[in-house]
Amino acid sequence: MLTLFQHPLCPRSRYVRLILNEYGIDVRLIEERPWERREEFLLLNPAAELPVLVADGQPAVPGAGIIAEYIEETQAADLIEGRLLPESIGARVEVRRLANWFNDKFHEEVSGPLALERVFKRHMTREQGGGPPDTDSLRAARRNIRYHLHYIGWLVRTRDCLAGNEITLADLAAAAHLSVCDYLGEVPWNEDEVAKNWYARVKSRPSFRPLLGETLAGIPASATYADLDF
Amino acid sequence: MLTLFQHPLCPRSRYVRLILNEYGIDVRLIEERPWERREEFLLLNPAAELPVLVADGQPAVPGAGIIAEYIEETQAADLIEGRLLPESIGARVEVRRLANWFNDKFHEEVSGPLALERVFKRHMTREQGGGPPDTDSLRAARRNIRYHLHYIGWLVRTRDCLAGNEITLADLAAAAHLSVCDYLGEVPWNEDEVAKNWYARVKSRPSFRPLLGETLAGIPASATYADLDF
Repeated sequence: MLTLFQHPLCPRSRYVRLILNEYGIDVRLIEERPWERREEFLLLNPAAELPVLVADGQPAVPGAGIIAEYIEETQAADLIEGRLLPESIGARVEVRRLANWFNDKFHEEVSGPLALERVFKRHMTREQGGGPPDTDSLRAARRNIRYHLHYIGWLVRTRDCLAGNEITLADLAAAAHLSVCDYLGEVPWNEDEVAKNWYARVKSRPSFRPLLGETLAGIPASATYADLDF
Repeated sequence: MLTLFQHPLCPRSRYVRLILNEYGIDVRLIEERPWERREEFLLLNPAAELPVLVADGQPAVPGAGIIAEYIEETQAADLIEGRLLPESIGARVEVRRLANWFNDKFHEEVSGPLALERVFKRHMTREQGGGPPDTDSLRAARRNIRYHLHYIGWLVRTRDCLAGNEITLADLAAAAHLSVCDYLGEVPWNEDEVAKNWYARVKSRPSFRPLLGETLAGIPASATYADLDF
């Protein structure tokens, strides 16, 4: 049995949940607040970051990118089709490039600051970095999300999905990060119709349903978050 | 023929050079200054980051982590021994975890700020982010390097190398990032004898020699940088 240490509004945790759901792999979810630096959690991942995947009796697998590779190598290697990391070398480069784009760059510029300022800081003590949201940081994230949305639109104009014509890790990464922004009502969907239609497609996949059904106490989802025709 | 867009004091570029040297793969080096945002370079990597590897006639492979996986899959897959990314699933997790630790965390907390403040800012215009070094940033990097050095020492006390008993991508990543700090005379080697001895071992490998022989105009290497008995 697999256990995932995660947080419902951590975009990288959502990415791993989507991968597991796509492959139909059962997982036990444990909500972790990494800023509390729980000793048992630090033993699993000294970097103190989410997500961390643990298979019974095995060493912990820390970090979204490493977990994705691990799932591909242990759970998906024998699949003939439906691989989220395609076989061909060129496609693997493009899928990994875009998955990293969202897990690193988009996270740094958009989804990380939005989740931190609007959600996580509420739960943190002052020593942990809590306090009122930093408005400069929010303003920068709201400006940055626009060019990322246009980038998605630009990619999807030349392909059916982000990294080619099939759904891959790239689509799941982008959708996972966007879904956190969307929960917070922070995605200016009217800026790019093509990006919006692509997200509507990914969002209607069965793998997304569990995420759309969750609500955090005290932080209601935006009106259209769970709406498939937003 | 492979071409690597890189910078001599970019730690992630050094990581890829070490991998290529370990496998004995020839590469043409092109010095890129990513802050100039050269149009041809942005076409290779829209994220505008180093390094980028290009095989003749193939799409560009951007980013140290993706390049490492690419080299493993295209150049090293048939090797019986000497693989820098081992075969076993558990070992792969640990090697990737530590390679990411240095390429992400150490880069963010130590080698990135040191290279930016002490080297790259000299070449940048004010619009590109140039100017005098930020002393707060330097001070934080100099504080942070200590706990990373102790972490290396702690790992090597229980194993021969960072991620096990053989040299892997983890050692090359750590050594690549440390080598940039060492060039700048920023490694407090006397803080951890075990870490120092491990670095001396990695530094004496033939793959390291080309890096130790390079000097940047205007930025001399520290007295012990190229010294194998430092």
